Amino acid sequence: MTDTVAVIGGSMTKFGQREEWICELLAEAGNACLTDAGVPPEAVEHLYVSNMSSGEFEGQTGIMNALAHDLGLMPAYSQRVDQTSASGGAGIYAAWQSIASGASEMTLLVGGEKMTHRSTAEATDIIASCTHPAEYKHGVTLPSFAGLTARMYLDRFDAPRESLARVAVKNHENGTRNENAQFQKEITVEEALDSPIIADPLRLYDFCPVTDGSAALMFCSVEVAEEYADDYAIVSGIGGATDTHVVHEREDPTTMGGVVKSSEQAFEMADLTPDDIDVAELHDMFTILEFLQMEGIGFAEKGNAWEHAMDGRTKLDGELPINPSGGLKSKGHPLGASGVAQGYEIYEQLVGEAGDRQVSAETGLACNVGGFGNCVITTILEANQ
Amino acid sequence: MTDTVAVIGGSMTKFGQREEWICELLAEAGNACLTDAGVPPEAVEHLYVSNMSSGEFEGQTGIMNALAHDLGLMPAYSQRVDQTSASGGAGIYAAWQSIASGASEMTLLVGGEKMTHRSTAEATDIIASCTHPAEYKHGVTLPSFAGLTARMYLDRFDAPRESLARVAVKNHENGTRNENAQFQKEITVEEALDSPIIADPLRLYDFCPVTDGSAALMFCSVEVAEEYADDYAIVSGIGGATDTHVVHEREDPTTMGGVVKSSEQAFEMADLTPDDIDVAELHDMFTILEFLQMEGIGFAEKGNAWEHAMDGRTKLDGELPINPSGGLKSKGHPLGASGVAQGYEIYEQLVGEAGDRQVSAETGLACNVGGFGNCVITTILEANQ
Repeated sequence: MTDTVAVIGGSMTKFGQREEWICELLAEAGNACLTDAGVPPEAVEHLYVSNMSSGEFEGQTGIMNALAHDLGLMPAYSQRVDQTSASGGAGIYAAWQSIASGASEMTLLVGGEKMTHRSTAEATDIIASCTHPAEYKHGVTLPSFAGLTARMYLDRFDAPRESLARVAVKNHENGTRNENAQFQKEITVEEALDSPIIADPLRLYDFCPVTDGSAALMFCSVEVAEEYADDYAIVSGIGGATDTHVVHEREDPTTMGGVVKSSEQAFEMADLTPDDIDVAELHDMFTILEFLQMEGIGFAEKGNAWEHAMDGRTKLDGELPINPSGGLKSKGHPLGASGVAQGYEIYEQLVGEAGDRQVSAETGLACNVGGFGNCVITTILEANQ
Repeated sequence: MTDTVAVIGGSMTKFGQREEWICELLAEAGNACLTDAGVPPEAVEHLYVSNMSSGEFEGQTGIMNALAHDLGLMPAYSQRVDQTSASGGAGIYAAWQSIASGASEMTLLVGGEKMTHRSTAEATDIIASCTHPAEYKHGVTLPSFAGLTARMYLDRFDAPRESLARVAVKNHENGTRNENAQFQKEITVEEALDSPIIADPLRLYDFCPVTDGSAALMFCSVEVAEEYADDYAIVSGIGGATDTHVVHEREDPTTMGGVVKSSEQAFEMADLTPDDIDVAELHDMFTILEFLQMEGIGFAEKGNAWEHAMDGRTKLDGELPINPSGGLKSKGHPLGASGVAQGYEIYEQLVGEAGDRQVSAETGLACNVGGFGNCVITTILEANQ
C-alpha cells in the first residue's frame, strides 16, 4: 500500500484571533486549497473535517455538511474526524484511507477550530474534557500534566531549565518567518525564563496560545496527482496509536507510548529510519513535548533531546530543523487545524514553497498528539522528485 | 474493491433509559462484540467510535481513547466518527475503508449516545445544532422539518394520514420481538392517530424517542473472516452523500438527495438493484422518513411508498420487510448508535440470528440519515453463503 497516496495542494488561514465563525474559517482554507491544488469543486468525492469541539465552543455541529455546502462540493461525502487535539493528524489518516481503499478519487481535508471567543480557562476546560474525569474533575488539566512531566524530565535527566526556554525561543524565531503564525515576535531565553509561572516549572512561554484558524490538504492517488502537479508529496508512512486514558497509570510519564508506536508504524511502512528525516513538525503544545516526541520518534536518545535544543541541531539551519513553521508554540494551536497545518508545512517544505523558512528536505515527518499523548498520529511525507 | 470486507460479529445493548455514562455504554457493546466475534482484544488494530455529541450531552470528549483503554485494545488506533445522526453509518464506512485500504486487519466499530439525562427539549436543541443557524435559531428544529415535509407529502400524493400511523404500528409490532428495543408495546392505528400533536400533521407516535444505548460491529477482510466464522456478512456496497445544509434551499423537500445518491453508489458497487434487497433498515426518526427513503432508494415509485404501508408489503411477513428491528421508532435512537444498530440488525438477519423477527434474507440494506437528510450513508450487506 506504500506510495499510493499523494498530497497535491494545501493551505492555511492566518492563525490568531479571528472574527469569523467556524464555518467561515473552514471555508477560507478549503477554498484556498481547491485553488492551490487546481482542483474544481465537482472533482472532490470525499470531504473530511478535523475538529474537536465546535459544539462545545460555538453550539454548532454538522460543520462537515455545512462545509460541503459552502464549498459547492455536494453531493460529495462528508464526515467529521475527531481525535481531540490530534484530529488533524487523524484527518490525514482518514483521507489516506479514503484514497488507498478506492472509496474516493479526490479527497479534501480541512481542519479548524474557533476558540478565542471563549476565555483561556473555558478553553482549557473544554480541552481537558478529553482526559479521564478522575483527573480533569480534580483540576489536573493538560497544563498540569505538562508541568509535572517537565519537572520529572529535568530532574531525572539533569537537564537545564534553559533547554525548555530554547525550544520556545527557536519556535518563536521560526514563527517570524511565517506570515500565518499567530505570534510574530522573537523572544529571548531570559524573557522565557522570567515569564509568569503557569505550572511549575513551566512558564507562560512554554505554552501554546489559544487560537482560531484552519488549514487544508488535497489528497489523490499518485496516478491522479500526475495530472494536476509536477511537484507533489507522497504519504509514504502513517501510523496511529493510543496510550492509557488515565495518564497516571503510565509506567513512565516521560515516555509517550503513542508516539513510539505510531512512529514505528510510519517508519516501517515507509521503510525509513529517523536518520532519513530531513525536517519535522512536532506537537509543541508545551515545550516539554518537543523533547518527549524527539525521543519517542528516535530523533534523540532517551533523556538526551534537551542537548539538541542547546546545541542548535533543531534550529532552522541545523542538521534536523524541528517546527520550521513556528510550531504550535508560535503559530498557534486551533485544535482540529493543528495536525493539518503540520502536514501543510511539511508539504510546503517538500515542494519548495516554504519561503523564508525553506530548508533542504526530501523527507519530512509530522507528529500530532491528542490529549496528553492519549492518541497520536505520525505521518511521513516524501517529495515526488 | 467489492467484496473485500466482512462483518464477523456484532452486538447491541438494551436501548432505553440507562444509568451508565457514555463510556460504560460503549464498553458494554464493545465487549459483547469481541465475545460474539471471538476476537481477542489484542487482535483489534483500529477502533472507530460513532458518536455525535458526548461533549454537549455529558461534558466528556476523548471517548474513543477511553474505550480503547477500557476494552484493553491499546495501542490500537482509535478515532471518533461524527456525521450527526448518521455517525453510525459513517462509522461503517470508516471501518470499511480501514480494512479495504490495508490500514487495519481487524477493526472494531462501536457507536453510542447517552441522552436521557437531558430533557427532550435540550436533546432536540443539541440535535438541531447540526442544521443551519438561519433555521434552528428561529426554532425550525428537525421535528418542524418533518411536520412541514409530511404535510407536503400527504397533500401532493393524496396519501391518507393513516399511512403514517401504519408505519408506527408496524415498527412498534416489530419492536416487541426485539428484547433490546426501548418500547415493548404494540400500538393501534387509532392510538397513533389520536396521540398528541407535535408538529402538525405529525403526532407523538410519529417520532422516535430520546434514548441511551450502544451497538458494535467487527470488520475484517473476507480472508481473515474465514478464520473466525462459518457464517458472516460481506459489505458488498456502500455509499455516502450530502445534500444542502440549508434545508429550505432544496428544490423538492420530498426528495432526499443524499438518499438517492448514496444508494445509487451502493447499488453500483454491489452490482445490485433495489429489487435484489430482501430486508432493509431505514432511518425512521420520523414516520414520514420511511416513505422518503423507500422512494429515494427505489423500493417504491415517487409518491407511492405510502401504499406499501397500507398493503402490508413492508411488514415482517411482507415481500420487503422494513425495520424488522423495530426501527428508530420503537427500538430508540441513541444518535451515534443507530446506524451501527441498523447494520447489526441486517447482519443478524443474514446470519440467521434474528430470533423471533427472523426473515428470509440473503441481501440487506441499511440507510442512515444525518440531520434532515443533510448527509446520508447507505450500506448493502450480503450473506457469505
